[in-house]
Amino acid sequence: MADALYWIVPIAGIAAVLFALYLARDVLSRDAGPQAMQDVADTIREGAVAFIKRQYTTIGLLALAGAVVIGVVIALVETEKVADTGTFGTALGIRTGGAFLLGAACSMACGIIGMLVSVRANVRVASAARRSLVEAVQVAMRGGAVSGFLVVALSLLGVWSIFAINGGLSGGQSTHDAPFLIVGYGFGASFVALFAQLGGGIYTKAADVGSDLVGKVEAGIPEDDPRNAGVIADLVGDNVGDCAGRGADLFESTAAENIGAMILGGGVYLLAQKAGWSHPEAWIFFPLVVRAFGLLSTIVAMFFIRGREDENPMNILNRGYWVTTILSALSLAFITNVMMGSTGTTTGDNGIATWVYFFGAGVVGLATSIAFVYITQFYTAGSFRPVREIAEASKTGPATNIISGMSVGFETTAVTAITIAFALLASNWLGAHSGLGSVGGVFGTAVATMGMLMTTAYVLAMDTFGPITDNAGGIAEFSRAEAGARDITDRLDAVGNTTKALTKGYAIASASLAAFLLFSAYIDKVNLILQRQIDAGTRTIQQGLMTSVNLADVNVFVAALIAAMLVYFFSSLAIRAVGTTAQAIIVEVRRQFREIPGIMDYTGRPDYARVVDITTRAALKEMMLPGIVAVATPIVVGLLLGYQAVAGMLMVGTIAGVLLATVLNNGGGAWDNAKKYIESGNLKDENGNVLGKGSNAHAAAVVGDTVGDPFKDTAGPSLHVLVKLLATITLVLAPLFIR
Amino acid sequence: MADALYWIVPIAGIAAVLFALYLARDVLSRDAGPQAMQDVADTIREGAVAFIKRQYTTIGLLALAGAVVIGVVIALVETEKVADTGTFGTALGIRTGGAFLLGAACSMACGIIGMLVSVRANVRVASAARRSLVEAVQVAMRGGAVSGFLVVALSLLGVWSIFAINGGLSGGQSTHDAPFLIVGYGFGASFVALFAQLGGGIYTKAADVGSDLVGKVEAGIPEDDPRNAGVIADLVGDNVGDCAGRGADLFESTAAENIGAMILGGGVYLLAQKAGWSHPEAWIFFPLVVRAFGLLSTIVAMFFIRGREDENPMNILNRGYWVTTILSALSLAFITNVMMGSTGTTTGDNGIATWVYFFGAGVVGLATSIAFVYITQFYTAGSFRPVREIAEASKTGPATNIISGMSVGFETTAVTAITIAFALLASNWLGAHSGLGSVGGVFGTAVATMGMLMTTAYVLAMDTFGPITDNAGGIAEFSRAEAGARDITDRLDAVGNTTKALTKGYAIASASLAAFLLFSAYIDKVNLILQRQIDAGTRTIQQGLMTSVNLADVNVFVAALIAAMLVYFFSSLAIRAVGTTAQAIIVEVRRQFREIPGIMDYTGRPDYARVVDITTRAALKEMMLPGIVAVATPIVVGLLLGYQAVAGMLMVGTIAGVLLATVLNNGGGAWDNAKKYIESGNLKDENGNVLGKGSNAHAAAVVGDTVGDPFKDTAGPSLHVLVKLLATITLVLAPLFIR
Repeated sequence: MADALYWIVPIAGIAAVLFALYLARDVLSRDAGPQAMQDVADTIREGAVAFIKRQYTTIGLLALAGAVVIGVVIALVETEKVADTGTFGTALGIRTGGAFLLGAACSMACGIIGMLVSVRANVRVASAARRSLVEAVQVAMRGGAVSGFLVVALSLLGVWSIFAINGGLSGGQSTHDAPFLIVGYGFGASFVALFAQLGGGIYTKAADVGSDLVGKVEAGIPEDDPRNAGVIADLVGDNVGDCAGRGADLFESTAAENIGAMILGGGVYLLAQKAGWSHPEAWIFFPLVVRAFGLLSTIVAMFFIRGREDENPMNILNRGYWVTTILSALSLAFITNVMMGSTGTTTGDNGIATWVYFFGAGVVGLATSIAFVYITQFYTAGSFRPVREIAEASKTGPATNIISGMSVGFETTAVTAITIAFALLASNWLGAHSGLGSVGGVFGTAVATMGMLMTTAYVLAMDTFGPITDNAGGIAEFSRAEAGARDITDRLDAVGNTTKALTKGYAIASASLAAFLLFSAYIDKVNLILQRQIDAGTRTIQQGLMTSVNLADVNVFVAALIAAMLVYFFSSLAIRAVGTTAQAIIVEVRRQFREIPGIMDYTGRPDYARVVDITTRAALKEMMLPGIVAVATPIVVGLLLGYQAVAGMLMVGTIAGVLLATVLNNGGGAWDNAKKYIESGNLKDENGNVLGKGSNAHAAAVVGDTVGDPFKDTAGPSLHVLVKLLATITLVLAPLFIR
Repeated sequence: MADALYWIVPIAGIAAVLFALYLARDVLSRDAGPQAMQDVADTIREGAVAFIKRQYTTIGLLALAGAVVIGVVIALVETEKVADTGTFGTALGIRTGGAFLLGAACSMACGIIGMLVSVRANVRVASAARRSLVEAVQVAMRGGAVSGFLVVALSLLGVWSIFAINGGLSGGQSTHDAPFLIVGYGFGASFVALFAQLGGGIYTKAADVGSDLVGKVEAGIPEDDPRNAGVIADLVGDNVGDCAGRGADLFESTAAENIGAMILGGGVYLLAQKAGWSHPEAWIFFPLVVRAFGLLSTIVAMFFIRGREDENPMNILNRGYWVTTILSALSLAFITNVMMGSTGTTTGDNGIATWVYFFGAGVVGLATSIAFVYITQFYTAGSFRPVREIAEASKTGPATNIISGMSVGFETTAVTAITIAFALLASNWLGAHSGLGSVGGVFGTAVATMGMLMTTAYVLAMDTFGPITDNAGGIAEFSRAEAGARDITDRLDAVGNTTKALTKGYAIASASLAAFLLFSAYIDKVNLILQRQIDAGTRTIQQGLMTSVNLADVNVFVAALIAAMLVYFFSSLAIRAVGTTAQAIIVEVRRQFREIPGIMDYTGRPDYARVVDITTRAALKEMMLPGIVAVATPIVVGLLLGYQAVAGMLMVGTIAGVLLATVLNNGGGAWDNAKKYIESGNLKDENGNVLGKGSNAHAAAVVGDTVGDPFKDTAGPSLHVLVKLLATITLVLAPLFIR
């Protein structure tokens, strides 16, 4: 039975890819609306494709260079370290470089395909909105699900293939060693994700901020108004930043976490093998099987996205989410029972079967995911205290709006950290009491992470739903569609804002749970190398293995300090990049207002393409510095301060990155929704008069919204990637840091 | 010779107190100006005294309760742990509670006396400004130095007395144990500092923000205009926040760091005793002697504060600072030579004498202090890139001003962290090569901290110079003094802004260096208890001592996460408190404008006292929640997760706190000076026209300045205290966390 489960992995992966193709076909077969809509959509698509082409060419070249460098470094270092014949090092170098390239290629493929679908889904959603809310929701969600399924399935298939190629399926020692050979794949994915998220994030927010400032603030024309030459760039930005960027982010999460969990599974494997359990390798396969069932659950859930025309669209999406969650929980019970039941037939504390403890840990993960959905809603949705507080503060001007928003952003770290702490402690406790001892504790946190990530495909579909509906609204506005259609796209857009915020909360929670298991994987990897050195006689037994990451050691402390600083410094560079790029847009739009006659009375057509082009070039230029700083810092610290210091950097960098991302994401979301709260007429002065659009309070709230843009859509999401990059980079380059 | 040096400690302490009295007498003997000035000054003084009375009554009661609780807890826990007769525990409880009370009382005395002098110095500076710039500088600096000397001298005398009372002077085992008995003193000082800084910080910024918003923004009258009922509260705020608050902060620093260094000295002492060196106890006395010479150097430097009338006042202050630094360096050479030369006559690596290495470590500390002075100037002074960048961004409105300021704030962490990292690594390297092994490494960082803190009295005098001159400017404006006097007070006020920013940089750097030695002290303390338990048979030898703080342990990791979160959450509460209090002021001033006839044409007198009273009550109420959160969190974490987790909390809390404080202090300072940069006419549009006061760019810069106020003067400085509170609270309560 457990044997049969191994084959579910490629089957589910291929099924999900096929299902994604089916969804893509379905979306493309829908009616694309009147010519006016198609024209706008074509312009957006051209801009997005142009950006993606250039961006992925740049990233592809960087990845190629990265693969070569990593391959050579690993080949040289490993040769030296193991004092081997040299063959082992060279082979490992080639394998690692190849895995890196494959990871990079898969991540790029996901980004490109997902984006190509979403820039075609947007107009079809706008068109469907002329007829039916439910149909519009379905088209947007299916368009988003193409990305969702591809990301998770390709990540799963990639990891499985490399695992298979490296003899992972054969059982025995190579099954134990194979996961270490996949780390290059994770690093490749992180590397692409970093630049995709940075470039896309800078593009989208620079276009947003730039065209708002020059259009809404300076020229006094509405948002998404066709007279503003920056508007198309803004709509392009939704696709390249939110779709492609977040897709790469979560591709990386799932890849890195699969790998981390498999390496940890290796620890249990050794234990199980020694004890003579049947199928000890089940522990290594386990993470992949869980992921496969998550995919299958999501496929089923896609058929539950239906509802009434007068229903809140969020309810329709929530229905599918709950179906995914419940099916995931059920399959988790099945998987843990079969795979962990058959292995050792051990029982944990109080005579309860081992699998029950791990099932519990998986449920903790699913529950954490649900908790984050509601936490994010509380902090960023309009009807709760935080957003109301910011809206009230807007009455006394932009300064108090900003102070209040920062205070809310800072506050959100509390419940975030406490939830993560609870999830870690609970899943660790469950694992530690499962009968496997301390190895079980860490594996418990791994199972929680896997449980949490079972719903990734669905969450990602909801996320991509955001930019698709945002675009649909823009297309409806731009093509001056009928009021009914615009009303529906407005409602979907509001829901899209919420789902985008949810995904960020989800990404943060998964990053922090995953980080803890990636640390453990790092320690395992370091010890593997140290043990080899001891065996080879190049290291004394007294020097021993790495048993702790000692913060009281001055090198570790300094590395931790540098890591926490890196998080701020990287965010500073990302935020500044948005400002610089936005300036370029402002200058160009101003020039067009001045030099192209007739723009203001709609008789002259602005040169949209030129703004798109300028933004593309500026964003790609600006993404380089933060990207390089992120990649170089852990390497420099590792070379100067050694492998223990790197572990400290990894852990404290994760803590600092997760919390700052929380501040930036939630602060930005709350500012955004405080503005919407005022626009919906919810704010009143002391005499009960509504302070809506056009009031000073609204003007103050617009300032907050603009400040929040680069926080929540550039720096925040890039920090998720940074955190995981720290983990994969150190896993791959660990041999370099051991002296 | 070394023996004689021990007595320099009480002598220098008493000399400094006498010198402070002399300075106070000198300041008070100066002419207090015309009646109009005296009237304003009297009103400010009354408000400040009223606030301080109430605040210190509240804090005093809290401290009394704290002392009792701590005494009882220590008595109970220690009795149980050592399985002793009970006497030891009770005696220790009484001693610790008593030390706590003494620390609290000394800190309160410093705050009160310093403030009483500064509210009398302000009007004398305003009066002197009618005659001479140099005289005004001297009066302000002498007024500030009263605080400076008292803070350092009382902290030194307090530590010395408890050390002496506990048999520290007798040599032998009690000399080694005595420093552990002083930790209560440090905790008492931290406890008072936390509430003093929070209450004062909330008061000063709420008054500033509230009266600016209601006066400058709403009513359109200038800053410090007597028609604004909130203006006196604003001037009172300078005294209670900047003087009393920062005094308590640095009192705590010097006390906590003396104690930490002495505990570390105990480690070297044991080594030296075993090796049979003469005067092994010199290592424990060393920190106090260094501090004493720092005081003497500062006394000499006070006589070098002189210059020309047309000189930049900053140069006059810098002259004294350099004299202090050079004398400190020279005396450091002398002290290390005498005290470390006479002990072991060992030599370090390369045959260089041990004392030379430690002298080097001390110089690293002094150099770090100088580096921070220049780093802070670069980031917050008007002529450099960061401030110019923010001013330029103000052209496109408040949103870009805020984005740019946040980006600068984030950026400042880079050079801060790198400088601290360098100081830690360098001083640790020097200590480790001094011939004392790894104990020497940690002691090296301790010596660097001591070197850095030799100039504390002078730095604190420069800091208090800030609010005194700020007040003098307000008094001159308010009493409509002649233009020449106002011109001088404006120049002094600008310098005061810089010196206030410098002190914060200095406080941060010293907090982070000190934190590292306080960790080590914590580990020593825990091991002392564990060893006692092993000796008493209540703990097995296998369980062993604490040798590392293992971040890979899930409890430690969770504690670290909570610590980093605490820093944000605490700041959120502090910032929100300012907003809430400012709202109370706005409502009251609006009421007065409406209800008191003739305010606007100067015929009606606003009710200043009522605003002062409302602010006082609100600020004291609002300081409670953040204060309690700060004190309770480490205790709860320690009780739930144990002593190793607390160590992780301490270290990561320090890193997170220091960096967030850097962001808040420097971001706030840069916003403030970007506004001043524009007001001075340095910003021009593309056609070369000056964008000064009244321009949109200036309005945008005012928003940034207001946002920065609670960052740099409430949350940032309170974080310094929080970091040190974490250290002292865990040192005192360590026995509680050991199960």
